[in-house]
Amino acid sequence: MLGRTYEGQNCSVARALELVGERWTLLILRDAFLGVRRFGDFADRLGIARNVLQDRLERLVDEGVLEKVPYCERPPRYEYRLTERGLDLWPVLVALLKFGDRHYAPDGPPMLLLHKECGGEVDDRRTCARCGALVEVGDVRIEPGPGLKRAA
Amino acid sequence: MLGRTYEGQNCSVARALELVGERWTLLILRDAFLGVRRFGDFADRLGIARNVLQDRLERLVDEGVLEKVPYCERPPRYEYRLTERGLDLWPVLVALLKFGDRHYAPDGPPMLLLHKECGGEVDDRRTCARCGALVEVGDVRIEPGPGLKRAA
Repeated sequence: MLGRTYEGQNCSVARALELVGERWTLLILRDAFLGVRRFGDFADRLGIARNVLQDRLERLVDEGVLEKVPYCERPPRYEYRLTERGLDLWPVLVALLKFGDRHYAPDGPPMLLLHKECGGEVDDRRTCARCGALVEVGDVRIEPGPGLKRAA
Repeated sequence: MLGRTYEGQNCSVARALELVGERWTLLILRDAFLGVRRFGDFADRLGIARNVLQDRLERLVDEGVLEKVPYCERPPRYEYRLTERGLDLWPVLVALLKFGDRHYAPDGPPMLLLHKECGGEVDDRRTCARCGALVEVGDVRIEPGPGLKRAA
């Protein structure tokens, strides 16, 4: 766990990384923002070992970033939903996405963040490039972009 | 290396994480933004194994995020400076910082990002809360905040 080794650092970046700096955690959160809720769906999309996935999800629940919500009583089944605290990680994901778009997307962004209301692109300050609105996570529609390539 | 395991992911978040998702890399970059340039200074501040630090710095140079600039000829000595691409990671660090400030800084932010020109606080959209300017990395002054505690 990163936490232990970063503990000497009295810094909000280090604190945030104790939570999201573990391998796969930010991709799990990305998928949560894309609407993935169930263990099997995370596992299929990410292709990671189920024990690693379980570990990361539990950590996120313990930290109050995801919550487990029952969707079936018999057998008992849970899905994972972003909490308010989890939604506060949206700016981190947008910042990573925009950096990737700028430097690692020669065919254009694989995924577009659009302002629901006017259809404008959301920029790296999370404002709408068309209407100038300050866009919150709930105001965003995601669409495939020009750089999207399906795996062969 | 994260890269290999994330390769199936056609996603700018995953691409960005191939670069900055390795343990310690974002803290090295944080220090670079704080003005740290030399190997020994990174090592002292971060307290990580020198071979790990060397590995991370080399990767960042290979990826064009840092550049090695000679500062002494005999013996040959280099310092590490952020490139333009490296400066583009500023929004990622601000997003992590603001998340940490919000959720893991009960005594207030350890570090304040202030707009050089007017002294206003820079918010999580990298705009000045006082004058409303869109603040770039070069427009920011960093000061100790109320949550700063010195290690005992």
